[in-house]
Amino acid sequence: MKAGLVANLFALDALRTIGMQPAARVCLQSVTEEECTGNGALACLVRGYRADAVLIPEPEENMLVRANVGVIWFRLHVRGKPIHVREAGAGANAIEATFDLFHALKQLEKEWNAQRKNHRYFEQLDHPINFNLGKIEGGDWASSVPSWCTADLRAAIYPGVDPRKAAKEIEDCIARASQNHAFLAQHPPEIEYNGFFAQGYVLEEGSDAEAVLHRAHASSFGRDLMSFVTPGYLDARVFVLYDDCPCLVYGPVSKDIHAFDECVSLSSLQQVTGTIALFVAEWCGLEPLPPGH
Amino acid sequence: MKAGLVANLFALDALRTIGMQPAARVCLQSVTEEECTGNGALACLVRGYRADAVLIPEPEENMLVRANVGVIWFRLHVRGKPIHVREAGAGANAIEATFDLFHALKQLEKEWNAQRKNHRYFEQLDHPINFNLGKIEGGDWASSVPSWCTADLRAAIYPGVDPRKAAKEIEDCIARASQNHAFLAQHPPEIEYNGFFAQGYVLEEGSDAEAVLHRAHASSFGRDLMSFVTPGYLDARVFVLYDDCPCLVYGPVSKDIHAFDECVSLSSLQQVTGTIALFVAEWCGLEPLPPGH
Repeated sequence: MKAGLVANLFALDALRTIGMQPAARVCLQSVTEEECTGNGALACLVRGYRADAVLIPEPEENMLVRANVGVIWFRLHVRGKPIHVREAGAGANAIEATFDLFHALKQLEKEWNAQRKNHRYFEQLDHPINFNLGKIEGGDWASSVPSWCTADLRAAIYPGVDPRKAAKEIEDCIARASQNHAFLAQHPPEIEYNGFFAQGYVLEEGSDAEAVLHRAHASSFGRDLMSFVTPGYLDARVFVLYDDCPCLVYGPVSKDIHAFDECVSLSSLQQVTGTIALFVAEWCGLEPLPPGH
Repeated sequence: MKAGLVANLFALDALRTIGMQPAARVCLQSVTEEECTGNGALACLVRGYRADAVLIPEPEENMLVRANVGVIWFRLHVRGKPIHVREAGAGANAIEATFDLFHALKQLEKEWNAQRKNHRYFEQLDHPINFNLGKIEGGDWASSVPSWCTADLRAAIYPGVDPRKAAKEIEDCIARASQNHAFLAQHPPEIEYNGFFAQGYVLEEGSDAEAVLHRAHASSFGRDLMSFVTPGYLDARVFVLYDDCPCLVYGPVSKDIHAFDECVSLSSLQQVTGTIALFVAEWCGLEPLPPGH
């Protein structure tokens, strides 16, 4: 997304270099929390920033995002029964129990993936719903059966699914798995929602903004704009869902996002910058820079 | 063990209250590292402290320990391939991989337990060998496939088994499990030995020291001394294995060792204190306190 922020700035600079500026107001926003709650974008909306169209330059392989999943983060707090390891069988290992719960959640992931045929645009994806066990911490030392473990998970949900409903299914899944577990049945795990609790969205086809982006992209790249569906979360949901404003997520080719040495293609970024400049030019119209600028 | 240290002190005090003291040298030692390496006891021996008999007042249910396991601690360092969770299947989850390795180790635990018939005194125990996953840490946040995980484990070995040989079996087990794993086959886990690397031992029957303890116990408790075999580690191995010195591990009834609210029975502790006083009296002989004491 850092690359996209730069593309936005350079697109406006590009207009300036030919002595022009947008003939309507362009508002450039950079938000926090993009990777954990989406509250930064929401804060912009709540502050009263409104637009006829929004463009978010996320790295999206030179394509337009048609739809994406929502995301729920949750932390499992699992307890165990500590005991001297010499009688380990008499205790209850909180770390092992956490893995049992994760296996139960992977079953729920499977069920949700099986439902993809009922969700427009997601029918063709192989595995749109990912439950990720992203972080774990538990136990204090090697020689006791550990009494505690916490695990941070990320679950995806389809557009149109209420996160509260999905969270309930997750809670039920954990409760069922705990019933089958001698210790957890009496000491059920706790679930903490510690970040994303966000709906997915679909960008409806046919908006004027999308038509303008198609033309701008075709001019910059010399080929048609493709759209696709992503099993990742995007802030666009805020503008699409809560302000009924078309929000175009469109950006450069990238590699290894959220991994080591994540990067974007500079040549792609350059062409995307061209698209953005052309989009602003057509969407807002252009006027000469005032004298002296 | 804190209770046992107190019992030692009070046993010598008890002799003093009747105006007597041991007629031979009694050396009272309190060591560190009893729960993670055993190096405190080893340091005493290396310093040159020698005895005709050693008594370690660990809480052992008013019984004498006949034999106990050795212990190996090790830390698994497991790597994964981080990736954006939207394409989780293309990454390699280090936390999940750690659990796969643990399951492989539990198979080895099973094999070692099956061998108990070949180990004197361990034939009758249900489950002498415990592998404990005591601590885990991995991953940085919920929305990436985690690239790292470390797990602290404790494994038991029978008396007579060289820890180096056992460690090799553990390493082979990890290596085999890694071969079946797409990512780990190319990026094998590392094993760090970060504590216990200790042999088990058997206290041979028939020593004079044991005979004296039997008599002292019978006087204090009014019943015969029983011995048993424990699947826990004990520092006695240092004196038994490296100094060929009979080391009697004998102490009070306890509850929830290494767990919440661990405690000992005070009435048991009182009787054990009596046993220790009588043991010292017979083993060392007694002489009147010098005048003025």
